[in-house]
Amino acid sequence: MEDKAQIQEAIKVQGEVVRKLKSEKASKEQIDEEVAKLLELKARLGGDDGKHQFVLKTAKGTRDYNPKQMAIREKVFNTIVSCFKRHGAETIDTPVFELKETLTGKYGEDSKLIYDLKDQGGELLSLRYDLTVPFARYLAMNKISNIKRYHIAKVYRRDNPAMTRGRYREFYQCDFDIAGQYDGMIPDAECLKIVHEILSELDLGDFRIKVNDRRILDGMFAVCGVPDDKFRTICSTVDKLDKMPWEDVKKEMVNEKGLSEEAADQIGEYVSMQGGMDLAERLLQDPKMSQSKLATAGLSDIKLLFSYLQLFQVTDKVVFDLSLARGLDYYTGIIYEAVLTQAGVAPVANEAQNGANSEESVSVGSVAGGGRYDGLVGMFDPKGRKVPCVGVSIGIERIFSIMEQKAEASAEKVRTTEVQVMVASAQKNLLEERLRLVTELWNADIKAEVMYKKNPKLLSQLQHCEESGIPLVAILGEQELKDGVVKLRVVATREEIDISRADLISEIRRRTSEA
Amino acid sequence: MEDKAQIQEAIKVQGEVVRKLKSEKASKEQIDEEVAKLLELKARLGGDDGKHQFVLKTAKGTRDYNPKQMAIREKVFNTIVSCFKRHGAETIDTPVFELKETLTGKYGEDSKLIYDLKDQGGELLSLRYDLTVPFARYLAMNKISNIKRYHIAKVYRRDNPAMTRGRYREFYQCDFDIAGQYDGMIPDAECLKIVHEILSELDLGDFRIKVNDRRILDGMFAVCGVPDDKFRTICSTVDKLDKMPWEDVKKEMVNEKGLSEEAADQIGEYVSMQGGMDLAERLLQDPKMSQSKLATAGLSDIKLLFSYLQLFQVTDKVVFDLSLARGLDYYTGIIYEAVLTQAGVAPVANEAQNGANSEESVSVGSVAGGGRYDGLVGMFDPKGRKVPCVGVSIGIERIFSIMEQKAEASAEKVRTTEVQVMVASAQKNLLEERLRLVTELWNADIKAEVMYKKNPKLLSQLQHCEESGIPLVAILGEQELKDGVVKLRVVATREEIDISRADLISEIRRRTSEA
Repeated sequence: MEDKAQIQEAIKVQGEVVRKLKSEKASKEQIDEEVAKLLELKARLGGDDGKHQFVLKTAKGTRDYNPKQMAIREKVFNTIVSCFKRHGAETIDTPVFELKETLTGKYGEDSKLIYDLKDQGGELLSLRYDLTVPFARYLAMNKISNIKRYHIAKVYRRDNPAMTRGRYREFYQCDFDIAGQYDGMIPDAECLKIVHEILSELDLGDFRIKVNDRRILDGMFAVCGVPDDKFRTICSTVDKLDKMPWEDVKKEMVNEKGLSEEAADQIGEYVSMQGGMDLAERLLQDPKMSQSKLATAGLSDIKLLFSYLQLFQVTDKVVFDLSLARGLDYYTGIIYEAVLTQAGVAPVANEAQNGANSEESVSVGSVAGGGRYDGLVGMFDPKGRKVPCVGVSIGIERIFSIMEQKAEASAEKVRTTEVQVMVASAQKNLLEERLRLVTELWNADIKAEVMYKKNPKLLSQLQHCEESGIPLVAILGEQELKDGVVKLRVVATREEIDISRADLISEIRRRTSEA
Repeated sequence: MEDKAQIQEAIKVQGEVVRKLKSEKASKEQIDEEVAKLLELKARLGGDDGKHQFVLKTAKGTRDYNPKQMAIREKVFNTIVSCFKRHGAETIDTPVFELKETLTGKYGEDSKLIYDLKDQGGELLSLRYDLTVPFARYLAMNKISNIKRYHIAKVYRRDNPAMTRGRYREFYQCDFDIAGQYDGMIPDAECLKIVHEILSELDLGDFRIKVNDRRILDGMFAVCGVPDDKFRTICSTVDKLDKMPWEDVKKEMVNEKGLSEEAADQIGEYVSMQGGMDLAERLLQDPKMSQSKLATAGLSDIKLLFSYLQLFQVTDKVVFDLSLARGLDYYTGIIYEAVLTQAGVAPVANEAQNGANSEESVSVGSVAGGGRYDGLVGMFDPKGRKVPCVGVSIGIERIFSIMEQKAEASAEKVRTTEVQVMVASAQKNLLEERLRLVTELWNADIKAEVMYKKNPKLLSQLQHCEESGIPLVAILGEQELKDGVVKLRVVATREEIDISRADLISEIRRRTSEA
């Protein structure tokens, strides 16, 4: 047992922290986090009755979604899934845990963030860390050599959660991938078309899609004199360019990674370049770059890519950017990342909001990223057969946060149900008549509600409609029953008209289909 | 290291098992299970190159969903969610894992089936075992005293998986619950209305919804002379009546549970009773039953319930059945269970298919179950505040299996995409024109595909349409381009007509909206 006095002291201190945050009107999340700590301490102290000592909270770094958040989530998912379906994608699902060895050796240093299950006898299991490795395992296991699929599911990382910045240990990923041996750059271009469509439809403000190629990066490192064994580490330094000024990046290269100043300066010149197809053409003529076969292969593909992007009508947002590096080891060709450029919508304070992409060099406002990975499936195939893949991951958690902020700021209330009509009565003893009418409506596929009270007050029935945005009320009374009508009330305008029972359903349909 | 010779011998034996199953045309699942064992053995032996020794499989008791299974799953979910929304339900989501202590003491003996996470420092966590306990935790934590919500998510049980019978360790639950203090039996009746609607719409064949009440069971035990401390154990014996004849149930009561023969016989008389409101009325007059306050309270509620069910027009399928017991401890009032009555659709071999209800006394063909649990939320509230709840869980895994069997048996192919039109060409060098046209279609929200080849053969483009059920092909050729038209081909009839580019989108919409 711990020392009670010590815990009591800690509770006192933690109580002060909470009070201070409250007086400073800190964010709800921040207060909740500190309150949770306080409750944990109190639980350790134990109670008198020994009955309710447990801590009433979700696991660290996780959260419940309330109905309002779910309504926003559903809207975002619908937009994204519609786009995937428009492009002919199928969907698959995989278990939330995999054999531990399936994940081993795929995430480098980040492997320490994997959640393991307790050994309760039997196989050693881990929670999935992303959707890409399970996808590659699925392809190899089922010997599938081509598929266009999307997968939306939660993944798990024992990261240091920064929930106040919207970063969680359990979060959604939303992946679209095209596997198969095809003619160059056509599926790659379609991935960018999809990002363009989704970000446009979600109306998140202006955005840019940065494009580069791993082979161009590697070729560039080679011609700038970076030793082969330093490609990866220098690449991950370049990756910091969206968060650090060039001077600091250069310092890291020279002082920490031991690169020559001259090589660093040459890299610095290249990574400042941005453009379109013209830049790829210019670099193909560049005396140094043109010496690298890797770089010229990558540059030719960028040219081809842009020609398809023109046909797809998305070049307005796409920029060839030599500073884009991306962290993941498994990329082998084209890489890309979409960033929001309107600071207003994506405040810097929420910089790391996209838990979904924590390993993927999230820059300020990054909302999607991906690239080509032609070697991953081969790692799972017993005969090492390769299945070329290209894909994109939509940074859905960050998009949720932005949509939530927008909903918060908007005057319009987020509806959490789709109820079209409330069946109400002004008088007593009409429960049976209400139930009869609501049954008629349900049977006609009208979304309808009735209060679970024998004699509810009309006011409380109307209030419920106001609160949950129900547009119509069907009011029953002795007179209406005698006349064979229902009083239909429009909540917004308070207009009331008598409708015959026979016409009620078509009238409700007419009035709610306009919305 | 294990003895190589020993493993090699085991591999030989296991190889025989697999060959035998294949020659006997055993089910795919059965063969897969044995092949997995074989692969595990081979992995233990190790390979020569030491490269690909891992086992390529999903964790024991889990499975991937392929696109066809996902298409069926989506259809079933849509039907169910539409029904929940028609009744005005909101939805929430909770994390896949909870603090271990949140689950402690909620599942009795079955607690041993809970998956724990490894202690990697920090909180002790477990995977959720159902959706009801997280729901109760959510209500208590957020001090919510009324809500109508649904929750569809996966739950986890380290059960002995019988995958050949469709029973898994990871499976979906699909719950609808009404929490709040309301007038008696109105929300309870709505739950039954919902079960009736869903099972009717899914078209699974005829069904019955059995209804009983925990208080009637307890009252019955009391008046039959069962000692108080034997209520629960006798109740779980009664629960076996759908799988065992009365003689065996009686034997268990008398021989194993030590009940007097006389008491058992009296119970036997009651549990053979089935009926409707009339039976409840009769039992209220029953000289013995009427002595128990618990039983009369339950019987009065059954009467009230049936009066609402009449208004909801669902009494055709509902039967008051005194043998219905259900396993879970937390029920406090009405309980119910829906069973399919057409043996053809739900073969006995699949008896335990509904993993979702493994603890809930699944009878042959059980596809939904639930009841009233007025005490669970109070277990989480620091002040023990109660929130009355009633809910229903749809046995979605079993329904998937039935739908899959139906799809298998049907001549109609399950489509895994919704693509309306394939943009194709008969001649070479038309990739750019195809990409231009498919962009037009995508931008007009038409679901369209194009092959990722520079010069695909027309035949292979048409074959792809046949295989994936795409109804239309938009064919481009030099002549069509010159004439400003597209040849629109109807895949089913092979009919081809020239449509002007200006009319193409409306023509595709017209033709695909009919379907």
